[in-house]
Amino acid sequence: MTFDPDSIGAVVFDVFGTVVDWRTSIIREGRELGRRKGLSADWAAFADAWRGKYQPSMEKVRSGKRAWTPLDDLHRESLLELIAEFDLEGLDEHEIDEFNRAWHRLDPWPDSVEGLGRLKSRYIIATLSNGNIALLLNMAKRAGLPWDAILGAEPARAYKPTPESYLSTAAFLGLPTNRVMLCAAHNDDLAAAKSHGYRTAFVRRPTEYGPRQEKDLKPEHEFDVVGESIIEVAEKLGC
Amino acid sequence: MTFDPDSIGAVVFDVFGTVVDWRTSIIREGRELGRRKGLSADWAAFADAWRGKYQPSMEKVRSGKRAWTPLDDLHRESLLELIAEFDLEGLDEHEIDEFNRAWHRLDPWPDSVEGLGRLKSRYIIATLSNGNIALLLNMAKRAGLPWDAILGAEPARAYKPTPESYLSTAAFLGLPTNRVMLCAAHNDDLAAAKSHGYRTAFVRRPTEYGPRQEKDLKPEHEFDVVGESIIEVAEKLGC
Repeated sequence: MTFDPDSIGAVVFDVFGTVVDWRTSIIREGRELGRRKGLSADWAAFADAWRGKYQPSMEKVRSGKRAWTPLDDLHRESLLELIAEFDLEGLDEHEIDEFNRAWHRLDPWPDSVEGLGRLKSRYIIATLSNGNIALLLNMAKRAGLPWDAILGAEPARAYKPTPESYLSTAAFLGLPTNRVMLCAAHNDDLAAAKSHGYRTAFVRRPTEYGPRQEKDLKPEHEFDVVGESIIEVAEKLGC
Repeated sequence: MTFDPDSIGAVVFDVFGTVVDWRTSIIREGRELGRRKGLSADWAAFADAWRGKYQPSMEKVRSGKRAWTPLDDLHRESLLELIAEFDLEGLDEHEIDEFNRAWHRLDPWPDSVEGLGRLKSRYIIATLSNGNIALLLNMAKRAGLPWDAILGAEPARAYKPTPESYLSTAAFLGLPTNRVMLCAAHNDDLAAAKSHGYRTAFVRRPTEYGPRQEKDLKPEHEFDVVGESIIEVAEKLGC
């Protein structure tokens, strides 16, 4: 290892895809809603389409075309478009809100809770996610994710990968960026964090985007740690 | 009880005085520094004077005379004034920074860790403190305070008791204010929160300001819960 694990003060995490399996969870939520309301759809295609609107919706905020808007609100606007596109009829406002909160009920990957617990014994562990605070907090309570703090886009009022999102998070932690490690399953996120001085841990999640995933199958830059799971990342940091 | 404990989604806490005993801790830190550096002072008077500069320093930010400034920075400016006032000579920049971080090393009251743990089993528990995130996070790691989230002045960019500090915190939690309970040892803080719809729990800390404390010895408004400790507040909420 090219750095001293004692130099790290906090390990922060991308959440969607890195800590939780959003795709399987949204498919499950869609199927449950479909059963309850007698709606049929290709729920895998629905999950992919919902996630497909994620980057474009944040880009309006990142580019300054739109004032700061939390992810719950962006998710709900995308959901309204998808309800029309997938011809899902008969959902009232309450049911739409409830389905939108499916993102608060994502299940962790099997190694996440144990891996985070091990890292927490030595480091501050926090989110550095584009999810809003309520989303991440409700997810953590349900899934048992033992965060020390919920950080990321909402407290920074800036979506990744803007410089502000990484720089504010390190400032909130009271640490220089080279004492903060980002753990993520995505090359772009890690490369951006690294460009601001963060330490980096790549965790491989080869089915995040389903059985035919093509991107982020392997690290494409020099990262400090690479693991097949958060448990392996913890082990490599001596936890 | 005039409300249903099931209606509460989160219990948020004032920290200085309510969860931790800042006065005894700052006196301890002063004495330790004095021994190490051969400095003598009335450390109780020093602790009271440092805390005495707390409200005036925040008032400049609250009134808009000064841009948003985290509490660590306000504490350090006050400390520089006190070093002159108490004739403490021979501290270098590193030692001043280290002494300033005494506020990150405050000890909890004897009931705090158990009381918070019990509340956490049923509710989201978070800070709603004027302390900045790094201060509260380092304090929590050292003292074992099991927060689900670190909220308050810094993420809201507004010091209590501005309306924004209470309203932003409830918004971050994704809850209407009447589903959030503030637990605090201070009548003013609770009265302000209550005016915005919060549920309120008064916990009595009769020695927060030392043996001759005159204020906040009892609740002066109608609060939803009153307890002698955070454990008693937890018990009254059925935890």
